[in-house]
Amino acid sequence: MEFDQTWLTSEVVERSIGGKSFYFDDLPEENEVSLRLRSEILGWGRARITSDKEDAEIILRVRPGVLATDESYRLESSEGVISVIGNTSRGILYGFYSMVRRMINHQGLNFESTPSQPIRMIDHWDQIDGTIERGYAGESLFFGQYGKNSNPDRKEFSVRDVVGDPFRRDYQRVEFYARMLSSIGINAVSLNNVNVRGLATFLITDPLLDGVADIAQIFTSFGIKTYLAINWEAPKRIKQIKTSDPLDQEVRDFWKEIARNIYNRIPDFGGFVVKADSEGEPGPYQYKRTHADGANMLAEAVEPYGGHIFWRTFVYNSRQDWRDRSTDRAKASSENFLPLDGQFKENVSLQIKFGPIDFQTSEPLTPLFGGLKRTNQVMEFQITAEYLGHQIDINYIVPQWKKVISFDTKYRDVGDSVASCILKEHAIDPEKTGFTSVGNVGMDYNWTGNKLSQANLYGYGRLSWDNELTPEEILDEWINQTFLSIQPKYRKTIYEIMITSNETYKKYNAPLGIGFMVVPSSHYGVSVNGYEYDRWGTYHFADRNGVGVDRSVATGTGFSGLYSDEVARMYEDPATTPDDVLLFFHHVPYTHVLQSGETVIQHIYNTHFDGYEGVLDYIKKWSTLEGVIDEIDYSNVARRLQLQKQNALEWRDQINTYFYRMSGIADEHNRTIYE
Amino acid sequence: MEFDQTWLTSEVVERSIGGKSFYFDDLPEENEVSLRLRSEILGWGRARITSDKEDAEIILRVRPGVLATDESYRLESSEGVISVIGNTSRGILYGFYSMVRRMINHQGLNFESTPSQPIRMIDHWDQIDGTIERGYAGESLFFGQYGKNSNPDRKEFSVRDVVGDPFRRDYQRVEFYARMLSSIGINAVSLNNVNVRGLATFLITDPLLDGVADIAQIFTSFGIKTYLAINWEAPKRIKQIKTSDPLDQEVRDFWKEIARNIYNRIPDFGGFVVKADSEGEPGPYQYKRTHADGANMLAEAVEPYGGHIFWRTFVYNSRQDWRDRSTDRAKASSENFLPLDGQFKENVSLQIKFGPIDFQTSEPLTPLFGGLKRTNQVMEFQITAEYLGHQIDINYIVPQWKKVISFDTKYRDVGDSVASCILKEHAIDPEKTGFTSVGNVGMDYNWTGNKLSQANLYGYGRLSWDNELTPEEILDEWINQTFLSIQPKYRKTIYEIMITSNETYKKYNAPLGIGFMVVPSSHYGVSVNGYEYDRWGTYHFADRNGVGVDRSVATGTGFSGLYSDEVARMYEDPATTPDDVLLFFHHVPYTHVLQSGETVIQHIYNTHFDGYEGVLDYIKKWSTLEGVIDEIDYSNVARRLQLQKQNALEWRDQINTYFYRMSGIADEHNRTIYE
Repeated sequence: MEFDQTWLTSEVVERSIGGKSFYFDDLPEENEVSLRLRSEILGWGRARITSDKEDAEIILRVRPGVLATDESYRLESSEGVISVIGNTSRGILYGFYSMVRRMINHQGLNFESTPSQPIRMIDHWDQIDGTIERGYAGESLFFGQYGKNSNPDRKEFSVRDVVGDPFRRDYQRVEFYARMLSSIGINAVSLNNVNVRGLATFLITDPLLDGVADIAQIFTSFGIKTYLAINWEAPKRIKQIKTSDPLDQEVRDFWKEIARNIYNRIPDFGGFVVKADSEGEPGPYQYKRTHADGANMLAEAVEPYGGHIFWRTFVYNSRQDWRDRSTDRAKASSENFLPLDGQFKENVSLQIKFGPIDFQTSEPLTPLFGGLKRTNQVMEFQITAEYLGHQIDINYIVPQWKKVISFDTKYRDVGDSVASCILKEHAIDPEKTGFTSVGNVGMDYNWTGNKLSQANLYGYGRLSWDNELTPEEILDEWINQTFLSIQPKYRKTIYEIMITSNETYKKYNAPLGIGFMVVPSSHYGVSVNGYEYDRWGTYHFADRNGVGVDRSVATGTGFSGLYSDEVARMYEDPATTPDDVLLFFHHVPYTHVLQSGETVIQHIYNTHFDGYEGVLDYIKKWSTLEGVIDEIDYSNVARRLQLQKQNALEWRDQINTYFYRMSGIADEHNRTIYE
Repeated sequence: MEFDQTWLTSEVVERSIGGKSFYFDDLPEENEVSLRLRSEILGWGRARITSDKEDAEIILRVRPGVLATDESYRLESSEGVISVIGNTSRGILYGFYSMVRRMINHQGLNFESTPSQPIRMIDHWDQIDGTIERGYAGESLFFGQYGKNSNPDRKEFSVRDVVGDPFRRDYQRVEFYARMLSSIGINAVSLNNVNVRGLATFLITDPLLDGVADIAQIFTSFGIKTYLAINWEAPKRIKQIKTSDPLDQEVRDFWKEIARNIYNRIPDFGGFVVKADSEGEPGPYQYKRTHADGANMLAEAVEPYGGHIFWRTFVYNSRQDWRDRSTDRAKASSENFLPLDGQFKENVSLQIKFGPIDFQTSEPLTPLFGGLKRTNQVMEFQITAEYLGHQIDINYIVPQWKKVISFDTKYRDVGDSVASCILKEHAIDPEKTGFTSVGNVGMDYNWTGNKLSQANLYGYGRLSWDNELTPEEILDEWINQTFLSIQPKYRKTIYEIMITSNETYKKYNAPLGIGFMVVPSSHYGVSVNGYEYDRWGTYHFADRNGVGVDRSVATGTGFSGLYSDEVARMYEDPATTPDDVLLFFHHVPYTHVLQSGETVIQHIYNTHFDGYEGVLDYIKKWSTLEGVIDEIDYSNVARRLQLQKQNALEWRDQINTYFYRMSGIADEHNRTIYE
């Protein structure tokens, strides 16, 4: 089965290393990774491996302890010979991909790099029946029928019965995917959805574990650890134990046995990812235990093998009543986890969504970051575009992520962001910190539904490795590698579309950080009141006078008080709250003047007209690429742009009309707002 | 399989005729109906048939031509002997059921009756896979697996693949159903959904036609004609003809052959029901033909056999744009069908929903009635409670229907309502006029999900037979027959709940005739803006100043001008438009004073608080029946009342909050409206 070669097309690679001679210098020990590296050089790189050092153009050198970490690498170039140096095979594997990338991008080859984040992970929400929860690019790479791919963007995610082998076993595709991940520095994947439904509960046991091991073997060779999401009630479902109480001895023994068996089959298995007590999933609360009790119990089970637990903090009451103003979903994860700070074991990491709600177009950083002082933390992103246009609308998300990780929490005098120090300095084991993200690939030809969405996977990996990279640099790299053969002016066109696309999308969506004005369940398209009277705690409270959620300490839910004093002061006052999260923190009149100088209502109108115009401009720009880039890629994006145009139009008109009907305030520029 | 015996429980029957002796006097000819009548007397009635006239307590007498129609009957009682007289066996069958009913209800037995409406039909929206579109009482009686019943109240109605025999073949159940229908005077049923999906297209051909014939045979014996809904594209799908153009000779021949084959198997087959050019269904428009062309072509095919075509007028552009104020769905059926008046053949009836939109809680009579002058017309109702509470909420609908059929269209000086004369006087064949309705039964134990919903089926039949009956009389009858053995005070309790239930439901729903503030697709529960920006032409246009659709001639869509001069004048002016359809015709300020003396906004608040209180009162009243009525019936309704309470609460609070946020006007009585 054919598939798109992404930023790793042979053409690209050949231009840099095709035919070149590589030499392994003093490899202390051959292992899966060094073997893989040899095959990458020969197969993917179409280069040679020589046994004569004098003949070598590129020398790969493993030198334990030379660099800062076992993932670090150093490139040196002198007298026509390039050296790639690392403490381990993994180090030189990363160095090898880096060298190729830097060659293509005309960056210097004297360069040393250590990853900013020790953990750089992808969470798959793939289901055992081949569907993917919030997947917009076809079926799972891991599960499903060989040769079959539908686009199961369903509105609900129950799992169908699986008859026979649930594994897809398309190992060629998995291998290429592992190459994609390794080339951008990803070092961990979780294979299955955190909502562990149906047969997926049994992935941790025989015979399904065999299929997991087959996949893990491929990832291992690319330096990537494999994890599984577990069902909290596995003791009941797998072994008919009457409880899942984490302090029950039978339950503890169950998990130890499970771990022993897994590590027996997969020695470098990563560990477990857990969604517990969340959105209807079971968890320790039902036994009156804490999340620390739950996480630590699992941590003990995998500890003898160097295993690791990701425990998600996405815990909130998902049966709220819109009438009840005292409950605030934004506060839930802090309320649940701040009291447990310091109680988690060394091999537990809390997996914390970057915002306090749920991957919206604009959200503040959750106050858990900085609030937790002695807990390993992993920041969770979402590459798959659940709220960001379903990989139909063009949306290069890296600028948003960059802004989030750079936010200064002001816990110290000097800058104190997630990217700079919070994750490491507030950890009990800094190696157990980093980034994770819900993946965006599927069995579609181009992996991500929209060709341009590949840039988000690429960008997530690159940013995780190097927090100092800018979205602009990353995009430049991706476009260079992906569209190597076209003229610079056309690459510039693609760049201009993509670099503004996150802002454009944000413009025609829910305004000023209010969020959730989306079609329920699907989360694509506008529905101003779709969640306004629902049970999920996602309200805008718009009335004829104003809009927004009062989360101030003085008059609201008190959420803003969860931040450091200085940040709390900023968010407490509408005048100092940044425009793009104003309505997240405050209920203000439509005539409230933003920091931008516009009123709220005029901002709504302006951004929504602008957003739609932006899409029209993309269509015009993209049309200049016809005949220039590959026809498949051209029409893939062109078709989606037509859908995006329709989407932006509905957002523009429904939002404008809704707020016009509410406020009665006309547009200053007399553009058409339907009555 | 057991099922509820509805208003026809043996206990009821035995009290009136059990053990009595019947005598058939001079039956001119034995036929299916007279045979059935004999078996009804012996089996269901537990009575005797004597061959000795002197011994007879009840004499059945067929006398051709004595009464006004072949369905009419006369009861005479003198000197202890009751006579049931009719022109035909059908007449005495109806007379027989009437006699039983009148005995139970202590009504006199000197009585003559002729049906008000010649056609008294039930349309089933049953699908070939056993599901029912808009069904709230389990699976189809006709299709599905024997012994299997789920409650497939799905949000969409695509049809699953059927493997093997699609017919349920539970003939005991079908027979009881036919008895239910015949006992209330129904004389026609259509078996399958008007959206003819999947295998259902082939019901009109062998081998599926055999299964239809088996069902039809049962209905025939109860005096009920069987119809089928057809797929307009059957020529293409069944015989691979390239077109479905009604003027194409091959297409015409196809339908003639289909008809010949059907009537060969089912000599008294009724004919076809057609939904064409509607909500995505195919139709004559795609060949630039008129609906008269389409209907007449089918009518010609069945004409040699006395067959008959029901052609639905539910034709509108279902891809509207909410921005476009020039299109008005309410006008669509008039625009499509008024120009064709007089062009339909004698054996075609237009099937016209009573309101111009779609079975809402409050709608004006569609102006097609009275507007069409020379066309056979059938008025369509919906017994299944699509917009009326899904047979969860208690809703005795007969008062609404009675109001609709009694509406005076003022085309003449004297009263000119559907019930009194429009259908007959505007027809080219008065025998081809009457009522039809979407049925509400399924395989649930009690047929209708909610036991009390049986009264709607009962009431529809009774009202169709006798348009003069009041909702109060009909309900009285139904309660007497259904709850015969309980004390009158308890029957009164049931009566008090049911007689107010339609009004109560209306109170907590969309106010003042605005309609469609329901959860999209499912149509149960409140969603004020659920359809506001959708493509179905169902908008409320609420803004901070007012609410409603301006359908006046002077400033609106002009819909009100489609009525007779006097009615048009009434609807043109908000001051004379009845309150319960005010917002259907006008966009008025929240402070507009209704004929009731309340303002619009205060009316909204008052009715929504009242509606919820009404439900609380029902719960209290119903609880007094515990231990009094059958436990199954008691808890069936008690459970639903809890759901109804929740539903009424959400309607109350979401509607009140929505309009409070919009209008900013406080409740005069300071009740709690959430901000």
